[in-house]
Amino acid sequence: MVRLELKRAAGFLPEDWLSGRLDALKDAAEKLRTGSGAGGAFTGWVTLPEDALNGEELPRVKAAAKRIQEQSKVLVVIGIGGSYLGARAVYELLGKGEGGVELLFAGNSLSTDDLMGVIRAIGGRDFSVNVISKSGTTTEPAVAFRVFKELLEKRYGKAGARERIYATTDGERGALCAAAEQEGYERFLVPDAVGGRYSVLTAVGLLPLAAAGVDVDGLLSGALAERNVLAVGGEDNAAWRYAAARSALYEQGKNIEVLASYEPSFRMFTEWWKQLFGESEGKEGKGIFPAGVSYTADLHSMGQYIQEGRRALFETVVWFERSRETLAVPSQPGNADGLEFLAGKSLSFVQEQAMEGTALAHADGGVPNLRLTVEAVSAQQTGALLYFFEYACGLSGYLLGVNPFDQPGVEAYKKNMFALLGKPGYEQRREELLGKL
Amino acid sequence: MVRLELKRAAGFLPEDWLSGRLDALKDAAEKLRTGSGAGGAFTGWVTLPEDALNGEELPRVKAAAKRIQEQSKVLVVIGIGGSYLGARAVYELLGKGEGGVELLFAGNSLSTDDLMGVIRAIGGRDFSVNVISKSGTTTEPAVAFRVFKELLEKRYGKAGARERIYATTDGERGALCAAAEQEGYERFLVPDAVGGRYSVLTAVGLLPLAAAGVDVDGLLSGALAERNVLAVGGEDNAAWRYAAARSALYEQGKNIEVLASYEPSFRMFTEWWKQLFGESEGKEGKGIFPAGVSYTADLHSMGQYIQEGRRALFETVVWFERSRETLAVPSQPGNADGLEFLAGKSLSFVQEQAMEGTALAHADGGVPNLRLTVEAVSAQQTGALLYFFEYACGLSGYLLGVNPFDQPGVEAYKKNMFALLGKPGYEQRREELLGKL
Repeated sequence: MVRLELKRAAGFLPEDWLSGRLDALKDAAEKLRTGSGAGGAFTGWVTLPEDALNGEELPRVKAAAKRIQEQSKVLVVIGIGGSYLGARAVYELLGKGEGGVELLFAGNSLSTDDLMGVIRAIGGRDFSVNVISKSGTTTEPAVAFRVFKELLEKRYGKAGARERIYATTDGERGALCAAAEQEGYERFLVPDAVGGRYSVLTAVGLLPLAAAGVDVDGLLSGALAERNVLAVGGEDNAAWRYAAARSALYEQGKNIEVLASYEPSFRMFTEWWKQLFGESEGKEGKGIFPAGVSYTADLHSMGQYIQEGRRALFETVVWFERSRETLAVPSQPGNADGLEFLAGKSLSFVQEQAMEGTALAHADGGVPNLRLTVEAVSAQQTGALLYFFEYACGLSGYLLGVNPFDQPGVEAYKKNMFALLGKPGYEQRREELLGKL
Repeated sequence: MVRLELKRAAGFLPEDWLSGRLDALKDAAEKLRTGSGAGGAFTGWVTLPEDALNGEELPRVKAAAKRIQEQSKVLVVIGIGGSYLGARAVYELLGKGEGGVELLFAGNSLSTDDLMGVIRAIGGRDFSVNVISKSGTTTEPAVAFRVFKELLEKRYGKAGARERIYATTDGERGALCAAAEQEGYERFLVPDAVGGRYSVLTAVGLLPLAAAGVDVDGLLSGALAERNVLAVGGEDNAAWRYAAARSALYEQGKNIEVLASYEPSFRMFTEWWKQLFGESEGKEGKGIFPAGVSYTADLHSMGQYIQEGRRALFETVVWFERSRETLAVPSQPGNADGLEFLAGKSLSFVQEQAMEGTALAHADGGVPNLRLTVEAVSAQQTGALLYFFEYACGLSGYLLGVNPFDQPGVEAYKKNMFALLGKPGYEQRREELLGKL
């Protein structure tokens, strides 16, 4: 499914880049399989493709998606971090499907103008709300939920609002779980064993995507096929190889990884990938810094740095072999732009030569170039890609010697923010911080 | 106008971070003023605010913008790199103004699906085209121009198409200049003395922005005010201080700069900034790697890495003191989410505490935090910010000892691409490359 090519990276890798890591990879794969490694309580995502396909929740997700499509034109998806990036990544890559509602994302910032922009974008159209929060107390989504709940009640009354609110949250505990019980919102599960950044194939991602008309069965079956391929370990395993190559390059001082795609619609997928790897590896003063570029646009901006700047980076290209549509370069009498030699050729062909030419240029310039190829921009291939990166990220974290499933650093800003906001219980920290301001 | 605060970076800077660089800064400022440094032929942007305000082209830009608004609902802006990032950055930040047309951007990738998406987004609406290319032969915009010219001719006939095409290009040479002369397109200037990434305040940026209803006079007058402030050198000059702090941090091994904003609409501005600094500094194996984050969203993704990952980065926050609209956190009986202590407070207040709390947390975690404050999301302030960064970037390049105005590395991928595409004249390179594939 997902193929890894290292032809343009091989010259940068030491001879034992893979053989020297096979034992560690075997160990890491076993930890992921059995949940016996650091953060093992959060490895529920490993079997998620089959669990989701066979579980009781998927039919309910689909039924709710259908109801949302019947009652609304727009679904406001309220969540932050892992509670929105996955859905948004897939939605922007695959687009709205047949009969799907438009998704608008809120609760992922504290920007007034952004929130008002979402309200304006809804306009007079009917809308529903999917609020996604494990705890229900995270500031950004909780504030947005207050705003959109009020808006729903104004427009549809209290009872009408209840029928348009879908809560994806903890199964037993937490503020949103309690509110959903009390108000009677239809409720979906954020499983305990799956952390936010690994949750796109739970209801967290599946409900909004199904409402948008995305083929969630295809997404899951693609992920399952990839899981079955990757479950067989060994030197040919693409995730093992990707994790090993990253680890070897990092040890050589390549501490920035640039994820590159030639499809502008891949932009939010790159953001999802940045959270996945950055949050999993960036701790204890370690980790590859994840960055993203969109080619060929960024060959005319970040391209200069990548070609000739500090030689501390490597590049991973996600390449889709087929575009969804086709287009031939039109002929132009006179050939003013000198491009008549391309007339009649498909734009995809031109794009592929740009990709090959860039890989050669960057490798010549000292940038190891890794390539991940998938066949097409489809639900199946997207599911495969999601699972591939999740699995490779778990392996990578263990190779690096960190817990790939915690995120202790995310609390630091929250504590300070609560103290400065005057939240009850933060009085002492508030005094300390006010002295520093 | 643009204020720099270094309170959360001071602890990371050596005592002589500024004093030790004053001579070099004075020299750099003089090079920018007189054009006597490396790349001095491309310092026309230094006086661009007054040149543009007093020049003959601005009235023509405004008249053309008005004509575009009369003839169309959509303007397709064809350009790549510096020929589109500035306009897109300002358009996404400020939004469409009164009476403005919608801007759609094309010719900045080789993606078939993206190009088809632009055609679909136009739909049945009337549209005009602004093709922006110094040479007229850059592959991406040239291919897109072939496509949209054909579309215009199909819809409006050859004569009608001509009236809807606006060419921003070289004043005398090049394929697009010649085509514009021959076909009678209205023509605007890409000045010789202004490189792509510094061109947003020429017709390159001003024409599409004016068509979108953005206050281009405000943009230019804000830039001019900032220019007048920065023209006075010395230790209090915010651009001198920013350039010096960056240089000092880089020398200490902080080789990634993360530009952070709390406004999601700032996203493309960050991309413009990445080109500006990455392309100006990233050469000869040197340069700070420019990256971007959008807070608070990315505090829940990249936040973990920034707080606890490799300590090789610093952060520069662009802070807008006032939002455009206001919103109070609604009260919620029962206080299920525990946020009732915020009820009635403005969301902007909450955002500000998040920003202050994050700066403290990141500095405590070993990340120098610089802050650039502007008053509001307005045309004036945006103009000031554009000029501030341009000027600081010129200084930074000279401090680093590179030519901040060339981009020799951008050619490498193009040559390979042309060879692989079989462009006449690239036969020998083609043979070489085919051997490597």
